[in-house]
Amino acid sequence: MLAYQLIERKRDGGRIEPGEWKELVAAYLGDEVTEAQMAALLMAVFFRGLDREETDALMETMWHSGASLDLSHLSAPRLDKHSTGGVGDKVSLVLAPLIASLGAVVPMMSGRGLGHTGGTLDKLESIRGFRTRLSLDETRSQLERIGCALIGQSEEIAPADRRIYALRDSTATVESIPLIAASIMSKKLAEGLTGLVLDIKRGSGAFMPEVEKGLELAHLMVALGHGHGVPVVALLTAMDRPLGRACGNALELEEAIHTLHGEGPPDLLRVTYALGAEMLVLGGLAVNRDAARRAMEVAISSGRAAEKIREVIEAQGGDPGVVDDPSQLAEAEKCELFHAPQAGFVATVDPRRVGFGVIELGGGRARPGDPVDHSVGFVIAVRPGDLVRAGEPLATIMARDDAGVEAGRRALERAIVIADEADYPLPLVSHRVTIEGATPYEASDTPVELAAQP
Amino acid sequence: MLAYQLIERKRDGGRIEPGEWKELVAAYLGDEVTEAQMAALLMAVFFRGLDREETDALMETMWHSGASLDLSHLSAPRLDKHSTGGVGDKVSLVLAPLIASLGAVVPMMSGRGLGHTGGTLDKLESIRGFRTRLSLDETRSQLERIGCALIGQSEEIAPADRRIYALRDSTATVESIPLIAASIMSKKLAEGLTGLVLDIKRGSGAFMPEVEKGLELAHLMVALGHGHGVPVVALLTAMDRPLGRACGNALELEEAIHTLHGEGPPDLLRVTYALGAEMLVLGGLAVNRDAARRAMEVAISSGRAAEKIREVIEAQGGDPGVVDDPSQLAEAEKCELFHAPQAGFVATVDPRRVGFGVIELGGGRARPGDPVDHSVGFVIAVRPGDLVRAGEPLATIMARDDAGVEAGRRALERAIVIADEADYPLPLVSHRVTIEGATPYEASDTPVELAAQP
Repeated sequence: MLAYQLIERKRDGGRIEPGEWKELVAAYLGDEVTEAQMAALLMAVFFRGLDREETDALMETMWHSGASLDLSHLSAPRLDKHSTGGVGDKVSLVLAPLIASLGAVVPMMSGRGLGHTGGTLDKLESIRGFRTRLSLDETRSQLERIGCALIGQSEEIAPADRRIYALRDSTATVESIPLIAASIMSKKLAEGLTGLVLDIKRGSGAFMPEVEKGLELAHLMVALGHGHGVPVVALLTAMDRPLGRACGNALELEEAIHTLHGEGPPDLLRVTYALGAEMLVLGGLAVNRDAARRAMEVAISSGRAAEKIREVIEAQGGDPGVVDDPSQLAEAEKCELFHAPQAGFVATVDPRRVGFGVIELGGGRARPGDPVDHSVGFVIAVRPGDLVRAGEPLATIMARDDAGVEAGRRALERAIVIADEADYPLPLVSHRVTIEGATPYEASDTPVELAAQP
Repeated sequence: MLAYQLIERKRDGGRIEPGEWKELVAAYLGDEVTEAQMAALLMAVFFRGLDREETDALMETMWHSGASLDLSHLSAPRLDKHSTGGVGDKVSLVLAPLIASLGAVVPMMSGRGLGHTGGTLDKLESIRGFRTRLSLDETRSQLERIGCALIGQSEEIAPADRRIYALRDSTATVESIPLIAASIMSKKLAEGLTGLVLDIKRGSGAFMPEVEKGLELAHLMVALGHGHGVPVVALLTAMDRPLGRACGNALELEEAIHTLHGEGPPDLLRVTYALGAEMLVLGGLAVNRDAARRAMEVAISSGRAAEKIREVIEAQGGDPGVVDDPSQLAEAEKCELFHAPQAGFVATVDPRRVGFGVIELGGGRARPGDPVDHSVGFVIAVRPGDLVRAGEPLATIMARDDAGVEAGRRALERAIVIADEADYPLPLVSHRVTIEGATPYEASDTPVELAAQP
């Protein structure tokens, strides 16, 4: 009866009280509320929304359905970053060791590839033997020892969220801002953080392309965190083209390692520094964002950031030698160049088409549980605004066989559009959202120039 | 993948093609589409609606998921009536034998009590031994023999509708006009009818109180029937007060028997004649509605209608003697009068409160599968507009015990409102909807006066 009444009330535009969310989720986990009833409720929420208090109650209920990572005995700030997902986005692989090398504890819990986007766990598993599934106890002990862990969501964390997310994923109820916010924040608050930075993607390759929706999501998550004593800063970043050059698991890991060695593509570095500066200031490890950026530059040039990822790889069962010699990673059988079909400006490098192209090469999952070929992917040398000559190499295709090369070529032919003129791409970092509100992102804090800007 | 895409498309306001409905329902019956996916789709349909073609495709798919009653070898017209459900509505019990006695074949499939409303099957089961579950073969053979059957929905008819309806009932997705229309018409078309009359209730005791929604449902069902060669006429009738005087299973059966003997309450008789006239004209058994009414009056006064219900009761395992001596029916232990607390006009006899009162007495189900006490209920002597004196008896309460009498008294105290003035009740029959459109119902065809009108 409870479930029926709550579905009906939400369907008709009413609200569900905090105590009712608690009772409902408990009954769902106890199989007294059916999957069908929860699915109907989630679809009603898709149409009717949740107010702030409802979102908070759902988040808190999911959070408290499992264990939390208790790191309160550590004196260091505990910081994490969450991204809404993109193509070529290997920021986590650079940022976690970088920030940990500057004195923070970084319990970075990531996911797998989803839709057209890549997943940090899949990229890490390019390293033979690397374990992404650690228990909460193992995670806690590794964080105490080396201050950084790169892991999947533990089964002990927010089991209600895991079950509800799987249901949303099969019933087309993922795309709801309050449900997205409650899901992400239920897991992040279980990490016992003292500060959180969000990377909200916008543009054609983002799950939520419109900037208005991105801002709405940012405001909501910032408020949810603050409500539980965790300061949160969100940056809106561009996903109208891939981030960096490499797209594909081992290729992205390799690019992340190069970046930790000081040889990263400028756009990747700029987004990493922008997010990292927020983390360091939130954690009290830098007085302002400019100081934070200088600290990060030193951490990279001194080799301390690279040393931290070596420690993480070793602690989680991989061979840290890969950091000095990335050629240990699996290499694809076939490697072919992709050339410009005509002269002109690069108008588009479509992240969705690139992302689905990687999946077609075998580098991602068409359905859950599919095996992943870590070696395949693209390295794309151009970005929107670049002027190219006919026949000039634009990208490299790494594939298993000739059929893969052909599939990769077809994907790039559709992804990379050459035209007589090109619009400006989106600004790499456009908005900054804190509990005080949203402001345009100030470029003066980030003097690294975007190569793509004409 | 199919289910996900269709849910997403409907959620975003798109349409589902006829072939897709077919594939979807087949996959649902084959357990390839989950209950949760179907529930999410139904909730999306609640918000987005279905267009005429989609509704027709869903209806046809549910209809063809099971068997149909093939009566095409009979020369007589095959007619049925469907009501959207009310309180005190025992029309089916009078109408089916009445119309069958005039030469039609009437395969009347009815339901059980739902929410605050009563169900024809529960009323029939007041007769000891009466079987409401017949196989399609038994039904066919009974119709060939005596032209009338009063039965539940066979499991062979529209199994997809049965499963989808149960899902809607648990997920608060019942109240959708296209889903209601598709569900009803999938079963009615499986009866192999040559004509169908719909009784769409309006007013506070109707599932869909607003006249606009009632008209929308009527137009849709009329169009669905005509699209498959079955002419349909819908009448909108009043459910702002109970129909007739008796509310409760055996009490209503007894009132129906009295009506078949020519001693029915005027409002019940008037609605029965209005619906029956449409059936007889649709079936070609009367040249117009006035002639149809005269034929029905003769069927009752001659005893032919009462004889027909005797045949039905005997064919379905009951003792036909009940038609001549209704005192054979179970009688409640306690019988007490309910008196007017003050003088004034009867402003309201609230059908919902009366209906839930019957359930509280034990005469309906608080949850599916509960046993039903057929003996209990109310006989309400007054209707809106009546002038009453303080202390005048307004109703009789039939209950199991003193606690039941008290519960019945409390229900009637809330249901029957006495005030200094009373609004006019809704016209008993207000609209007539055919494939040509909706018109005000013409009283000249139905000269029996409504006793309640001041």
